[in-house]
Amino acid sequence: MVDCGEGTQIQIRRSKLHFSKIQAVFISHLHGDHCFGLLGMISTFGMTGRTNPLHIYAPSMFEEYFNESVNLFCNNLDYEVVFHPIQTNKNKIVYEDRSLTIETIPLSHRIQCCGFLFREKPLAPHIKRDLIDFYKIPISQINNIKAGASWTTDEGEVIPNEKLTFPAEKPRSYAYCSDTRYMPNLHEMISGVTVLYHESTYANDSKERAKLYYHSTSQEAAKVAKDAKVRKLLLGHYSSRYPTEEILLDEAKSIFPNSYLTNEGMIIKVSNDD
Amino acid sequence: MVDCGEGTQIQIRRSKLHFSKIQAVFISHLHGDHCFGLLGMISTFGMTGRTNPLHIYAPSMFEEYFNESVNLFCNNLDYEVVFHPIQTNKNKIVYEDRSLTIETIPLSHRIQCCGFLFREKPLAPHIKRDLIDFYKIPISQINNIKAGASWTTDEGEVIPNEKLTFPAEKPRSYAYCSDTRYMPNLHEMISGVTVLYHESTYANDSKERAKLYYHSTSQEAAKVAKDAKVRKLLLGHYSSRYPTEEILLDEAKSIFPNSYLTNEGMIIKVSNDD
Repeated sequence: MVDCGEGTQIQIRRSKLHFSKIQAVFISHLHGDHCFGLLGMISTFGMTGRTNPLHIYAPSMFEEYFNESVNLFCNNLDYEVVFHPIQTNKNKIVYEDRSLTIETIPLSHRIQCCGFLFREKPLAPHIKRDLIDFYKIPISQINNIKAGASWTTDEGEVIPNEKLTFPAEKPRSYAYCSDTRYMPNLHEMISGVTVLYHESTYANDSKERAKLYYHSTSQEAAKVAKDAKVRKLLLGHYSSRYPTEEILLDEAKSIFPNSYLTNEGMIIKVSNDD
Repeated sequence: MVDCGEGTQIQIRRSKLHFSKIQAVFISHLHGDHCFGLLGMISTFGMTGRTNPLHIYAPSMFEEYFNESVNLFCNNLDYEVVFHPIQTNKNKIVYEDRSLTIETIPLSHRIQCCGFLFREKPLAPHIKRDLIDFYKIPISQINNIKAGASWTTDEGEVIPNEKLTFPAEKPRSYAYCSDTRYMPNLHEMISGVTVLYHESTYANDSKERAKLYYHSTSQEAAKVAKDAKVRKLLLGHYSSRYPTEEILLDEAKSIFPNSYLTNEGMIIKVSNDD
């Protein structure tokens, strides 16, 4: 989960997502709309029988207050809450497992703030099943071939790896750029990501206001998307001054056509195919 | 406002109540479902132009953490947030103005917890307009007569106060008894209140469970209502184990017939007439 505003637990229930699916929460910064739902969610997890640990990745300045809050309000949990302090001004991998890395993206907001970049690790190539059968390659060798090995037949013929496999899908990536002023160099850190979420609080008419309050216009979000050559741009975090967000979308599309408005409960596919 | 769980600001918006109407929040205890909405509401008030102070009455143990939270998350407010520490184990007036007193009601929960009793002050009697005219009593004397004075005519005839006035409506009162185990003597503190809200987490089948977790059954709530001779009992804080709350209502009514289920957004009239 990325950020956790007030009412997040209600939104999870609406989404029918099982609570236990959530293993970690990444908090971009300490404004209420990004973290006021955290404590309530942790309490509720405690009352619904959770036993697997929950990992919280958040700005280091939050650690002491967060631990104090958990002690005050959630002192009887049957699961562990593990706090991982992050430095918002560094671009650094903060999480890694077999299939994924997550790194911080320093942003420019009124307080310490960072985005998060999720990168799928390169996938093993696919096996050409018919050729495996043809050369009678035993199952025990499949992992070696996936890892790049060639195959030598009993007759001494060497079958190169490229003939036995075809490349896996390109790894996907998702960059979440929470509240930030326009950063002309942001694209360097998120170059080529599959999907970029970039805040777009204002339309062009409020460019100065955006700068003043450390937010972005949708055209600035689109500029980042274009410079980073992403596949898809998601807009969000709209100012309530706009009765509809169409103006934000139209202005973004004039710079980066593959832009989309996001809204509560929406499901976005992260795919290299669209 | 009494208690402030997560999502309270959304509920206020739904109710169409203007934010500025809320002058004070009374927090019964520090469980999340009673206070996790407070900080978000205070932030939102700050962003919607509030200037009049907001008073928070809450258990004294909350003060330091609360002030720290406001400093961390709401450090640019254009209005004052005033914290009033209360002692939950005392029955004491904590607020008083021209028309109202509010007192704490010690309760028995897993942590420090109190209810709140709102009492309207006695109203001045009504003037009998026709007799005021008949005796040619000047307007300047009306307040004296409301305060109990008699009237002496130019002829020296004394008109007793009772003849010139009729009694005002009986003052109304509302007792909010938040999370608590059944307290056999609770009725003494809330004797004769107009409307009593008393938690009723469980039905009779979970009487032991109620005791264990410091909650009440709806029959225990009804017992308090009956012993206190209140006009109306409101039930709430239902365990999610009951698919409908009818069982809770039926069991309460068997002891105190004028019992009602409450639910989100409901408006209850506090009246001596029904």
